[in-house]
Amino acid sequence: MSLFGRRPRPVHAPKLKPRRSSSDQAVNRVSLAELTPDLPRYLGQAASLQLSNFEVVSGAIAHSPTTRDKVALTRVARVSLSKLEGLLEEIERGGDRPEELMEYFAAPVESFRERTRSSDWHETVVTSYITASMLTDFFLALADGLPPAPRERIQKVLSDDPSHIIVEQLRSAIDAEPVLASRLALWGRRLVGDTLLVARSSLAVPGRVAPDEARLEPVFTELIAAHTRRMDALGLTA
Amino acid sequence: MSLFGRRPRPVHAPKLKPRRSSSDQAVNRVSLAELTPDLPRYLGQAASLQLSNFEVVSGAIAHSPTTRDKVALTRVARVSLSKLEGLLEEIERGGDRPEELMEYFAAPVESFRERTRSSDWHETVVTSYITASMLTDFFLALADGLPPAPRERIQKVLSDDPSHIIVEQLRSAIDAEPVLASRLALWGRRLVGDTLLVARSSLAVPGRVAPDEARLEPVFTELIAAHTRRMDALGLTA
Repeated sequence: MSLFGRRPRPVHAPKLKPRRSSSDQAVNRVSLAELTPDLPRYLGQAASLQLSNFEVVSGAIAHSPTTRDKVALTRVARVSLSKLEGLLEEIERGGDRPEELMEYFAAPVESFRERTRSSDWHETVVTSYITASMLTDFFLALADGLPPAPRERIQKVLSDDPSHIIVEQLRSAIDAEPVLASRLALWGRRLVGDTLLVARSSLAVPGRVAPDEARLEPVFTELIAAHTRRMDALGLTA
Repeated sequence: MSLFGRRPRPVHAPKLKPRRSSSDQAVNRVSLAELTPDLPRYLGQAASLQLSNFEVVSGAIAHSPTTRDKVALTRVARVSLSKLEGLLEEIERGGDRPEELMEYFAAPVESFRERTRSSDWHETVVTSYITASMLTDFFLALADGLPPAPRERIQKVLSDDPSHIIVEQLRSAIDAEPVLASRLALWGRRLVGDTLLVARSSLAVPGRVAPDEARLEPVFTELIAAHTRRMDALGLTA
């Protein structure tokens, strides 16, 4: 397998300009499908980021202030591990070794985790939630450009969403300690840039011309809009 | 619910002396069944120890030297979380809150984890394997004294065994670096005492007379024999 190989891709009618339609989501997903990397590269990066998310969640479990928080987060960790396992199985189905595809992304993913790391427990929970949600949205959309069989399996694996657990946990923390709100709002905002950058790096396949910025813009606009809705759900300003 | 409540228990024909039979395991399980605590206490302690095991494994994941090691351990973590989830569901089925039953054991379990903690990665992997295996054996046997319906569900949940993953990982580490063997053998031996003590504490229900030591002895003998087989599988002296 080759991480950098180019494969023939179905030709879509070009949709260069964002347009209002009955489904903005559909527009963005078509735009992204044309920029989807090869399956091994997609899987290696998605699995590396999922493993990193699991490490963030398990770090938050280790430092949870209460057993109740620990228990809630183990359920989030379980979803994260299920997604990882689904991606690993898909890698093995393609005849590759997970560690080989993932190794290539270990350094950039570690650097992403460093930049989004906090020593504060609430901020760590926000990180696990916000970065995982944005990247899941992104990889779900990106999967549209994969061959049909893996696409269906991958989109199924990535669809499980444990957000309600974290939303409930953070909302009750903020209710109990309202001073948290402005700090967590700032922290959430800080995460967006790094997360969009790591998403963008998934598209920049070496040897291919740089993606058309005009085409990317509506995709990132939609990711940011979803982020704003998530922050709203926490009662925080995005 | 009461953590300390006593409930009527089926009367077994007393089997005070260890005896050789076609199945030593069966002898020990009968002996333990008479010392099984109430279901809420059993579940609270089993879930606390399972959560602790998950934290040990996820700490080992965070400090794995290679992506391959990380990936292998995520599969162990997944089994640990499945067992925890099964125990949590059983707690909720009984109308209790997991955090309430588990809170009671948080301090002793934390103390157990501290005593079996290592800053060395290989030792941490040995801890996650040896303590989890012994305690799973123990709680499987102890479940024999639970009412039939939860007993069956719990024994099913606890039966999943990811040992082969860790055995393979440790064997190849020892093959690559034979000097590890004597240190890990010592570490394994060191873990046994603390693990047996925490197992024993599951039986010492306040308000009940101390368990008959003669009855406990064969149980612990069997736990140690299983430990010896596990160390043998690693090529280590128990």
